[in-house]
Amino acid sequence: MNKLLPLILLSIVSCTSNSKQAKMDKTSDDVAIRQVLNNQVVAWNNADIETFMQGYWKSDSILFIGSKITSGWDSTLTRYKKSYPDKAAMGSLRFEILKMDFIAADACLVTGNFFLTREHDNPHGIFTLLFRKKNGNWVIVYDHTS
Amino acid sequence: MNKLLPLILLSIVSCTSNSKQAKMDKTSDDVAIRQVLNNQVVAWNNADIETFMQGYWKSDSILFIGSKITSGWDSTLTRYKKSYPDKAAMGSLRFEILKMDFIAADACLVTGNFFLTREHDNPHGIFTLLFRKKNGNWVIVYDHTS
Repeated sequence: MNKLLPLILLSIVSCTSNSKQAKMDKTSDDVAIRQVLNNQVVAWNNADIETFMQGYWKSDSILFIGSKITSGWDSTLTRYKKSYPDKAAMGSLRFEILKMDFIAADACLVTGNFFLTREHDNPHGIFTLLFRKKNGNWVIVYDHTS
Repeated sequence: MNKLLPLILLSIVSCTSNSKQAKMDKTSDDVAIRQVLNNQVVAWNNADIETFMQGYWKSDSILFIGSKITSGWDSTLTRYKKSYPDKAAMGSLRFEILKMDFIAADACLVTGNFFLTREHDNPHGIFTLLFRKKNGNWVIVYDHTS
């Protein structure tokens, strides 16, 4: 029995350590995802769509679903530039994150509200974003906004 | 070297078998998810919202995002019954699946179009569904439809 004790203690320490590590990873992932969204808001409010677009995975496979489906990073950039040609059209953006659901270690579904404040109107709506961790960085691979 | 050969062969057979198993699992998961959606269409077209709702996870944690956010199975059922009070309001439903993205072994993001045919209008739109495998069954845990 005495011979087993160090092994049991080691297992307990290892489990606790793994659980703590997992919790820390999730917290840091949560922070990293919120940071991506914060960076997008700052870029948008500087009328800087290129920097805003850094939040998306630079891939042909991303999907942006608005009134219609846009596929690919380049097409999404083009769509944004067409819909928001200048600072007045872009207005001031605010996100409100409602839910973050980690589906896997490298995947998180984020639900939130967006609010635009413009001179003549205040568009707002709901977004569903799928974030994936690509090469250590969290990026949006899927965006359904309505 | 000769002693290692059986081990190497065993590894190759095991890997091939695992890969084949994974492919078969994915195919059967794909079929199972499509079946859930087909069952929903059949139920809808029979004006049977309760059976249609079997496609959703019976949980307080599901989210349905339409013009606003509805949380929970019961509230989603109530919302459907209010929005579609009779067969005329429900019309005839058709789904068109555009993309199925398996995020994990128990998670799949499905993108598609819905088309309602009614006497006086033909509403249509885009859906994003997160399916999770719960107790061996694929169910919708998240629905963003616009």
